Amino acid sequence: MSFELLFQSLTIFATITLAISGVLQAARSEMDFFGALVLACVCALGGGSLRDLLIGATPVFWTKDLSYLAAILPTTLIMIIAVHYIPPGKGIRLKILDIADAIGLALFAILGAAKTLQLGFDEPVAVVMGAITGIAGGMIRDILSQTVPIVMRGEVYASAAIIGIISYTLIRMVTTETVAILIGMAIIIVIRLVALEWGLNLPKLKPPSDKY
Amino acid sequence: MSFELLFQSLTIFATITLAISGVLQAARSEMDFFGALVLACVCALGGGSLRDLLIGATPVFWTKDLSYLAAILPTTLIMIIAVHYIPPGKGIRLKILDIADAIGLALFAILGAAKTLQLGFDEPVAVVMGAITGIAGGMIRDILSQTVPIVMRGEVYASAAIIGIISYTLIRMVTTETVAILIGMAIIIVIRLVALEWGLNLPKLKPPSDKY
Amino acid sequence: MSFELLFQSLTIFATITLAISGVLQAARSEMDFFGALVLACVCALGGGSLRDLLIGATPVFWTKDLSYLAAILPTTLIMIIAVHYIPPGKGIRLKILDIADAIGLALFAILGAAKTLQLGFDEPVAVVMGAITGIAGGMIRDILSQTVPIVMRGEVYASAAIIGIISYTLIRMVTTETVAILIGMAIIIVIRLVALEWGLNLPKLKPPSDKY
Repeated sequence: MSFELLFQSLTIFATITLAISGVLQAARSEMDFFGALVLACVCALGGGSLRDLLIGATPVFWTKDLSYLAAILPTTLIMIIAVHYIPPGKGIRLKILDIADAIGLALFAILGAAKTLQLGFDEPVAVVMGAITGIAGGMIRDILSQTVPIVMRGEVYASAAIIGIISYTLIRMVTTETVAILIGMAIIIVIRLVALEWGLNLPKLKPPSDKY
Repeated sequence: MSFELLFQSLTIFATITLAISGVLQAARSEMDFFGALVLACVCALGGGSLRDLLIGATPVFWTKDLSYLAAILPTTLIMIIAVHYIPPGKGIRLKILDIADAIGLALFAILGAAKTLQLGFDEPVAVVMGAITGIAGGMIRDILSQTVPIVMRGEVYASAAIIGIISYTLIRMVTTETVAILIGMAIIIVIRLVALEWGLNLPKLKPPSDKY
Repeated sequence: MSFELLFQSLTIFATITLAISGVLQAARSEMDFFGALVLACVCALGGGSLRDLLIGATPVFWTKDLSYLAAILPTTLIMIIAVHYIPPGKGIRLKILDIADAIGLALFAILGAAKTLQLGFDEPVAVVMGAITGIAGGMIRDILSQTVPIVMRGEVYASAAIIGIISYTLIRMVTTETVAILIGMAIIIVIRLVALEWGLNLPKLKPPSDKY
């Protein structure tokens, strides 16, 4: 598989997983169909759009290649039907949301950093842009659906993305781009799912006694 | 009336209605004068700015033509005085806010889609950009004033915009641009006001029993 | 000191003060290290990034000059350690946050207006862009950390920025750019700190009786 095709395939796959997480969040917040569509678009396109804006790669990626919008619409329709067949209770929907979100975070974080490096920016900028690509869509989703923003919840979220992106920028110096991308993504997914499964949290900044 | 002049006039009119909705929301959230000015600008300029950023039409529209800022400032001043003469209670202020918001939504949604098509983007991108132009300003207003975001409230909001924009993109294939623009706007205003008057809602995605 | 060097030094200084305010807000909201890093970046880079996007000065300023990111990382690390040595209670952390925020607001508001004028935009656009540069970072910080957004709190915040920027645009007509910049900044810091110290508020738009 050529590098271009791998890049494109992974981006479409990440778009679908984040659209799924958007619909599931919309279901949890009891939105209607169009609300779910808005949230699916925000999740799937928000982070990459913000990255493209900041690095000056406008018009943003999904305006020139309709395959992203073409992937979101059927995903939203299928998930809206599928959500009725996921048994209620037991946190199964929340678990699917978390896994879809972890995969989308990993893929977009690494692909966002890779695109930034390809355009000639320095490594530190690529790390920030990768984090934005991975995190921003979920953050806007949480704000619009009045959920506690991910960055507030602890849960090793931004940290998983940043560790994975830094690993990718280091690994790509000693091996091929494709290998580095896949390892970087794997690191993020593993850290994120391990942290979720075991309820891991990084230490908070200070004891809660001194609130003001 | 030439098409350019119609386009410009409608945009200024939409700017004024959305500035009004911003001031009324600021009054409901008990902000001061400058908070009202910030909210009026966000409502009136936010959606179109985000559209211009995403399609790469920068600097954004209101930086090159001062008539938009020139329309917002007196509107804000007049509304701040007028708000004292609207009788309290009975939901009259809320009703004016809803009507101003519906007109602004309709005008900006269709004009946003029209501008995107004129710049050579495909129809699906124009639908999304129209929705962003119409909805984003109100969404940022709601987030900044700590109101439940419109997309969360059901109330046939995003749906009215999307139905109207799709109608516009279809109608313009069989008639003139001006007629299609006016019909598209009318569809959005009618759907939105009927839904508000009768309290219509689209079905929610799932029963509220399975919250997690 | 040359004008260019003054401009650059003040921007770095403002970046550091706003990064400090981000870490302090993260501590108040009990985030972890990476959450604090995200919030420091958002505070320090958010307003200037939004201004650069709107005026079309992309890629945004901090992607081409790594000194901004280089200033934020050690500031975040030092503040995370320092926050443990600030005695709890008595509102000292909140006071440092307010002062850091006031300085950052003043510097970025005037520098944002100055950059906009240098690029040939009109004065009213420069006033709006200055306000965005000064205010937007703090607004996004408040939304992400689930604090009441500054513009909602009254407290002479947006008003201090707007008065200072208008003063700067007037003063620069009769004296040198450097003098006008420094006077404009001083006006904002003084208004903001006096308002905070004495708990000043502008009158709210209407009596709270008519809530709906």
